[in-house]
Amino acid sequence: MTNKETVYVVSDSVGETAELMVKAVASQFFGQEVEIKHFSYVEDKQDITNVITMSKYSLSIIAYTIVVPELKHYLDQKADEEGVIAVDLMHPLMNAFTQKFNMEPNSQPGQMRKLDENYFKRVEAIEFAVKYDDGQEVRGLKQADIVLVGISRTSKTPLSMYLANKTFKVANVPLIPEIQPPKELFSIPRKKCVGLIISPEKLYEIRTERLKSLGLTSSANYASLDRILEELTCAENIMKKIGCPIIDVSNKAIEETADQILAIFNKRESFA
Amino acid sequence: MTNKETVYVVSDSVGETAELMVKAVASQFFGQEVEIKHFSYVEDKQDITNVITMSKYSLSIIAYTIVVPELKHYLDQKADEEGVIAVDLMHPLMNAFTQKFNMEPNSQPGQMRKLDENYFKRVEAIEFAVKYDDGQEVRGLKQADIVLVGISRTSKTPLSMYLANKTFKVANVPLIPEIQPPKELFSIPRKKCVGLIISPEKLYEIRTERLKSLGLTSSANYASLDRILEELTCAENIMKKIGCPIIDVSNKAIEETADQILAIFNKRESFA
Repeated sequence: MTNKETVYVVSDSVGETAELMVKAVASQFFGQEVEIKHFSYVEDKQDITNVITMSKYSLSIIAYTIVVPELKHYLDQKADEEGVIAVDLMHPLMNAFTQKFNMEPNSQPGQMRKLDENYFKRVEAIEFAVKYDDGQEVRGLKQADIVLVGISRTSKTPLSMYLANKTFKVANVPLIPEIQPPKELFSIPRKKCVGLIISPEKLYEIRTERLKSLGLTSSANYASLDRILEELTCAENIMKKIGCPIIDVSNKAIEETADQILAIFNKRESFA
Repeated sequence: MTNKETVYVVSDSVGETAELMVKAVASQFFGQEVEIKHFSYVEDKQDITNVITMSKYSLSIIAYTIVVPELKHYLDQKADEEGVIAVDLMHPLMNAFTQKFNMEPNSQPGQMRKLDENYFKRVEAIEFAVKYDDGQEVRGLKQADIVLVGISRTSKTPLSMYLANKTFKVANVPLIPEIQPPKELFSIPRKKCVGLIISPEKLYEIRTERLKSLGLTSSANYASLDRILEELTCAENIMKKIGCPIIDVSNKAIEETADQILAIFNKRESFA
């Protein structure tokens, strides 16, 4: 048994939502590391007894998503008896649903991971994004829901994957001064295109780091400020020609930029 | 104002963790649709007053992740005054941290989205997975943390992306009877390789559907049972030669297969 602060993430399914919530909470205690241990697919009282015993003899708490009422109550009761702190991440919200919407839960684990239509749409979108990454095949531009354009290191690829995971078909096209962008870029509906820009200073920093990680020095043209300014100017001219909205990705995480893109497409409401 | 059951997801950051939790809960009320509306980056009392007013006059509840204590208390108080149900998704767990670990939160929004080392590792892993998808470049096999092998439609690509999102560098190699697999596949450490198989019936179903979506008939060789059995036998022989663990992906969601892969690599504990 370790003495390190530990959170046992217990779930009757994969436990991914629970893990994310634990990470979100842990990030609020920055600088104080917490270990996360998973107990997925718990299905009987013995599984629960085991994890409670482990928690009892270590510096730990339990965070859980268990939808089967019998198991949930057993966990709460055992935790209480053994003096273990166990936090139910789902039931407060489930109870609110029942109270306000007059709905009753079906209490079946694994409902999030159903192989339904939406699931296959997501898989298809991911394959699409991989296929049409980095301007590999121009015909993807017509089929795409969203087309991202930008110079190197403006997060086109991770953004495409992130949006694909939300079932959007995304193609991305790199803009390079020496290469004429595909003419199809100017004939697709401008409203499905988004341009990505970044501050020259930030890009300089990112590219210098990247060269370093590749074992090259920053004297390479790729990371020179002159070159960066040339690329950015050229890219902005193309974006103006397309007439698409432009997002500055400097100091933004993928999730934040994606959120802005979805706001542009009216896919979600936001105060931002 | 609509009369449809609505959940307002309110956050002082993107609100993605909250959204996932709301979806997990909503999936427990299957067949009863619930609308989700986002209010991201709330930063002052006016934002909160607005969303409470909206909630008051509709059939809705609020689910929130707000870490600034002043805003959280204001929301709780206003919701109470106006008779609106507001569920705090983070604080029960945050309080458990404080109580058991003696830690104090820093109460700064957006801590999850920090552009830290882990973040850049994730971006790099995603770019790696795109680059080395579908056996595109054999040299990726050496650099990869995980190498997935399997025949067409065993979820290699979405699995690679999913694991990349967890910062693992993943390469995948398609197995096709007519094409000799790259010899490098037999010289990499066998413990970083995972073979994916699927039941012939399930694969038949998936491929027939895929052909249909491409506007082709299922009489194509690709979806014939004989062809499928030939491909599976050939793939299993290669996997045996590599000596890698084999996972059956039939009826498994990406998250579930990924969970099994990570368990193999001892990246997480699991009862499964």
